[in-house]
Amino acid sequence: MPGNSFGQLFRITTCGESHGGAIAVIVDGCPPGLALSESDIQSELDRRRPGQSALTTLRAEKDTIHILSGVYSGVTTGTSILLLAYNEDARSQDYNKLKKVFRPSHADFTYLKKYGIRDWRGSGRASARETLARVAAGAIAQKYLKEKLDVSFTAYVEQVGGIRAAVNHERVTRAHIDASMVRCPDKTVAKKMIRLIEKVKGEKDSIGGVITGVIKNVPIGLGEPVFDKLPADLGKAMLSINAVKGFEIGSGFAGIELKGSQHNDEFIKGKKGGMRTKTNNAGGVLGGISNGETICFRVAFKPVATIGKKQHTVTVQGASTALEAAGRHDPCVVPRAVPIVDGMAALVIMDHYLRHKAQNK
Amino acid sequence: MPGNSFGQLFRITTCGESHGGAIAVIVDGCPPGLALSESDIQSELDRRRPGQSALTTLRAEKDTIHILSGVYSGVTTGTSILLLAYNEDARSQDYNKLKKVFRPSHADFTYLKKYGIRDWRGSGRASARETLARVAAGAIAQKYLKEKLDVSFTAYVEQVGGIRAAVNHERVTRAHIDASMVRCPDKTVAKKMIRLIEKVKGEKDSIGGVITGVIKNVPIGLGEPVFDKLPADLGKAMLSINAVKGFEIGSGFAGIELKGSQHNDEFIKGKKGGMRTKTNNAGGVLGGISNGETICFRVAFKPVATIGKKQHTVTVQGASTALEAAGRHDPCVVPRAVPIVDGMAALVIMDHYLRHKAQNK
Amino acid sequence: MPGNSFGQLFRITTCGESHGGAIAVIVDGCPPGLALSESDIQSELDRRRPGQSALTTLRAEKDTIHILSGVYSGVTTGTSILLLAYNEDARSQDYNKLKKVFRPSHADFTYLKKYGIRDWRGSGRASARETLARVAAGAIAQKYLKEKLDVSFTAYVEQVGGIRAAVNHERVTRAHIDASMVRCPDKTVAKKMIRLIEKVKGEKDSIGGVITGVIKNVPIGLGEPVFDKLPADLGKAMLSINAVKGFEIGSGFAGIELKGSQHNDEFIKGKKGGMRTKTNNAGGVLGGISNGETICFRVAFKPVATIGKKQHTVTVQGASTALEAAGRHDPCVVPRAVPIVDGMAALVIMDHYLRHKAQNK
Amino acid sequence: MPGNSFGQLFRITTCGESHGGAIAVIVDGCPPGLALSESDIQSELDRRRPGQSALTTLRAEKDTIHILSGVYSGVTTGTSILLLAYNEDARSQDYNKLKKVFRPSHADFTYLKKYGIRDWRGSGRASARETLARVAAGAIAQKYLKEKLDVSFTAYVEQVGGIRAAVNHERVTRAHIDASMVRCPDKTVAKKMIRLIEKVKGEKDSIGGVITGVIKNVPIGLGEPVFDKLPADLGKAMLSINAVKGFEIGSGFAGIELKGSQHNDEFIKGKKGGMRTKTNNAGGVLGGISNGETICFRVAFKPVATIGKKQHTVTVQGASTALEAAGRHDPCVVPRAVPIVDGMAALVIMDHYLRHKAQNK
Repeated sequence: MPGNSFGQLFRITTCGESHGGAIAVIVDGCPPGLALSESDIQSELDRRRPGQSALTTLRAEKDTIHILSGVYSGVTTGTSILLLAYNEDARSQDYNKLKKVFRPSHADFTYLKKYGIRDWRGSGRASARETLARVAAGAIAQKYLKEKLDVSFTAYVEQVGGIRAAVNHERVTRAHIDASMVRCPDKTVAKKMIRLIEKVKGEKDSIGGVITGVIKNVPIGLGEPVFDKLPADLGKAMLSINAVKGFEIGSGFAGIELKGSQHNDEFIKGKKGGMRTKTNNAGGVLGGISNGETICFRVAFKPVATIGKKQHTVTVQGASTALEAAGRHDPCVVPRAVPIVDGMAALVIMDHYLRHKAQNK
Repeated sequence: MPGNSFGQLFRITTCGESHGGAIAVIVDGCPPGLALSESDIQSELDRRRPGQSALTTLRAEKDTIHILSGVYSGVTTGTSILLLAYNEDARSQDYNKLKKVFRPSHADFTYLKKYGIRDWRGSGRASARETLARVAAGAIAQKYLKEKLDVSFTAYVEQVGGIRAAVNHERVTRAHIDASMVRCPDKTVAKKMIRLIEKVKGEKDSIGGVITGVIKNVPIGLGEPVFDKLPADLGKAMLSINAVKGFEIGSGFAGIELKGSQHNDEFIKGKKGGMRTKTNNAGGVLGGISNGETICFRVAFKPVATIGKKQHTVTVQGASTALEAAGRHDPCVVPRAVPIVDGMAALVIMDHYLRHKAQNK
Repeated sequence: MPGNSFGQLFRITTCGESHGGAIAVIVDGCPPGLALSESDIQSELDRRRPGQSALTTLRAEKDTIHILSGVYSGVTTGTSILLLAYNEDARSQDYNKLKKVFRPSHADFTYLKKYGIRDWRGSGRASARETLARVAAGAIAQKYLKEKLDVSFTAYVEQVGGIRAAVNHERVTRAHIDASMVRCPDKTVAKKMIRLIEKVKGEKDSIGGVITGVIKNVPIGLGEPVFDKLPADLGKAMLSINAVKGFEIGSGFAGIELKGSQHNDEFIKGKKGGMRTKTNNAGGVLGGISNGETICFRVAFKPVATIGKKQHTVTVQGASTALEAAGRHDPCVVPRAVPIVDGMAALVIMDHYLRHKAQNK
Repeated sequence: MPGNSFGQLFRITTCGESHGGAIAVIVDGCPPGLALSESDIQSELDRRRPGQSALTTLRAEKDTIHILSGVYSGVTTGTSILLLAYNEDARSQDYNKLKKVFRPSHADFTYLKKYGIRDWRGSGRASARETLARVAAGAIAQKYLKEKLDVSFTAYVEQVGGIRAAVNHERVTRAHIDASMVRCPDKTVAKKMIRLIEKVKGEKDSIGGVITGVIKNVPIGLGEPVFDKLPADLGKAMLSINAVKGFEIGSGFAGIELKGSQHNDEFIKGKKGGMRTKTNNAGGVLGGISNGETICFRVAFKPVATIGKKQHTVTVQGASTALEAAGRHDPCVVPRAVPIVDGMAALVIMDHYLRHKAQNK
């Protein structure tokens, strides 16, 4: 299969460049009978929207979503759903001077080498605008999972540059997260993060960050041995997002320094006759299958490649040149990437819920 | 699709429990005309084999591989290849007392909850013995890629517990890696790692580690926008391996503290008219597509869950109990996991090579 | 995977109901560098368009196609292509009285039972309007295959009701086929077919027919053992078209009465040192793989289910009732189905060409 | 995906040549908790076995099946199941003289051209021996569907050469079918068929036939719009079987001569408050989805290509030559193909049952 689809049973297929006609996604496999309107999707898109705060790009796209199929009388019919947002405010002229230059750490070079052609306006298909489709489709999954199983997705910004928050994710809600424009639920740390981002922005530079993904109330049993373990599919989902360079679940990289006797999560009796684990170094999965504990993972985003600062590079013909980006870009991607992490996580859980339901009782 | 297949065009499907009849894999999509014999595969399996050194489990499985289809007159025919290793030395009685108990941080609990039944002998399908199939299939991919494109895979142990080696992976060869039984190419650090593992073993405990994956000479252009980016598929491959809790590529989690101006890899003129990057924070990929630089990534393995030390847990009925594992297990999984990382990486590169070849010239 | 996608490497995903916002298709996996404009696609859509002749429904949809992604500067970029046609002239009120009734031999009943909900306006997703997306995507495949390999697709109407043409398909061109509004290249028989269709239309009834598919210049070697044989994928493609009840390739059902000595196609020396077969009972495939001869197959279309004649049926609640359809429908589907057969055939050949290219030299 | 897998959720992957080590299949996605032993599978394999009657090849393969994974304590565990039969009685020397010759209407030519290499012993992967894997996997599906939903599969031989039986398939049982060695439930016609096959055998020739597939008690709602309609997937399943040249469902090719008013199946009230159709020209599907009526379809098998009669052909180098096959072959394939049709039909229904269950209540 080509690479523009994700998921097995709740399957999305996306298309669109930043300066083409539209960004769109077909969602196939949605259960019938789910109440669904544009506003259900728009609310998630607005969390991703450019221009939403002083921390983001000034591009003023409204990203209005249209449902063009698969919903009748306000309810999903079980057939494929088309979600589409037309492109607006696409100032292609901003990119004219990039036509002949390979921007450092951008996909310009690899797209041209791979395909022999590239749409150089605003990164074409490699633009982060592509993630709009992920968020839109993920909103459907989130709605279904909330209504059907009370599953919730509460990703938040844990780190910007060297500034890291210590948050008890069990108590964090969407309201806490969205209360700050940097989407860190620790108010004090959030202010420090904002100051750092503003400083970096003033320097025409950019900075990286970490988003922690949190999924509560996942039913026991999701995840498929042996290749489609839940961490494998969550990891793929996250590592397919622009600018992501790392993923870890539960104890992650920190766990390697522990001994088994320290790291193992003891089983204990839970409420209502169930079983729980005393600790959650596993991050909510055992043998790749959800164990009923909160799923938590961390996603590393590199600093945005596009910066206003002068950089050395080469032209398409290989001549040395210098570059100062003039486009309107985010100094730090993580505040706007929070809904992308939630959306992709929801797509994974939704897909695995249907896969589990197919094979098991 | 169920979860026992991996890859799109070079596609493997695996089966087998640790105490069933056999571990096997069907490799579908292999190009015809590749010279292939059991010894090509056995050499990689011997790197994964239990009992190969004092650091590993004492189980003495020979893991002899049989090619039962898809090869004729010593050459692949283009049809599906069956690789099979019969199970030997399976002391099921070692596991008798585990029948009624959930081992901490094991898949016992989630398999039983998911399927309503489990093969409790030696972890059944969740056994790391399953990775034998990955290594066997990966050996075919490694052979093809070496002969056709001179691609090499040189994963090594970078860290055990808190002991970390600083290695220039560009210079490391298989010979350097396999020279030490811990598979760390830095001889001095390797000795420290061995001492740590022996110490942990003596304590009936276990310890985690990091394997660095290194892939050289990957052609430019591999990886598919937008979901099947090369890091996404490499990440999924690694996160599907037993005990893996984290994956990062290039600068990974460390990169988040850098600014864009520090992190970006400048393009420079390379030898023979090509282009290179001055640094390789990207880890060999741009926009999810290989850029011709060495691909490097790190994989975090948690400490092995099975330990001889006494642990608290619950029975299948939920009663509190204690457990001291009697089976024969590795105190640290990373030395034997090196060929698994190489094998899975080769499966990803092989698959993406064929995918690229299909769409492009 | 859900059912709205077709193909492995040249993969289409479709959506849209007859009375929703639009019919659309995402084409993923198209090779880069193909010159492509709306007019390349529109010309095929016009062959399928309602209202094109006196033999078809009077609905006057123009079915104007829009390319919204994947093409830049008139050339495919290798990324996913969105083709979209907005719905027009959708007189939903024509269908009001169908809301409570199951139309005989329609999908009303099964959609409602499967999903618990249905879009009853114009058959919803089960409408033949869905095939617009197949023709649009197929036009891209046809253009690529013509330019790259000189493969041609010349399906034609061979039979309407009991009237059957005897045509040498080796000599038939698109011009011959489109010369008659019934798309039968035998002018005399075409006239008879037209008279029959007009007669049936006057009776407020409908009639079935056969389309013969013809594919010339297919390279040797397309088709994958053992499940994805070329006839299996062509058969699936055709049997997925609305109203199709049968498929046969080469000698088909007639061949069962022959002996092997009569049916076998002898190999002979061809021109330019190649090999040919003296006869072509195989229909261009051996062992499921193209052998270089013309691929020919026949597709049976049942009479259109929607007729103006009074029929007995039941309401959604199960009460007996009678029905006289008032919508605007085709008395015979085959003239407009010719481009659908061509389109689906092109999707299959294109997909198998890329699959073959991936694995083989 | 390469072509050796079939099905989406109940997915089989097969391998093996007629003269290699084994024929095997991995069945992935089987629900857990199904009682399963080798004898459940062997009984279906024995219906396909060579040498079972005077009408079949004399090869005396026992085709003993081994379950090597996925079953524990006599019950499926939900993990992948390996079924394997070792090859026996493989007289490769029978094929020595075929090494340099292209047999008419065989896959020799296309395999060599496609892959540049072929296993010429007994047709290699193109051998009908491959269907053993289909029957074995299908036996699991049949067992599950019978126990869970009382679905039954009763394919039978309807036609051999010009001799055709008129059978009311609603009343036919497996016992009726297997009572005659030609597997036609009409005893009188069966005798005529046997005489015809014996005559053809005496002439060192072969003859074609038709198998009618019958599936009873299929739940309403199976089949996925728009490409994975039930007839499309059944058609693909059948057209992927060796020697099949045609497939039709319900009225099939005969229906094209009917008018809509004759062909439409009126809805009527059924027993227990349900709805039925008065006739079943649809063959049990509406809009590609099962409607609760018996599914019936017909499959055309060409005469076996391998005959003892002298035939003209060419050598691999293109020189004219003559050929008299010495191997041990069936004069008519349909008696032994009945369990293959049942098996493939069961795989399709099983897969669609799981797919339906995933998306719907």
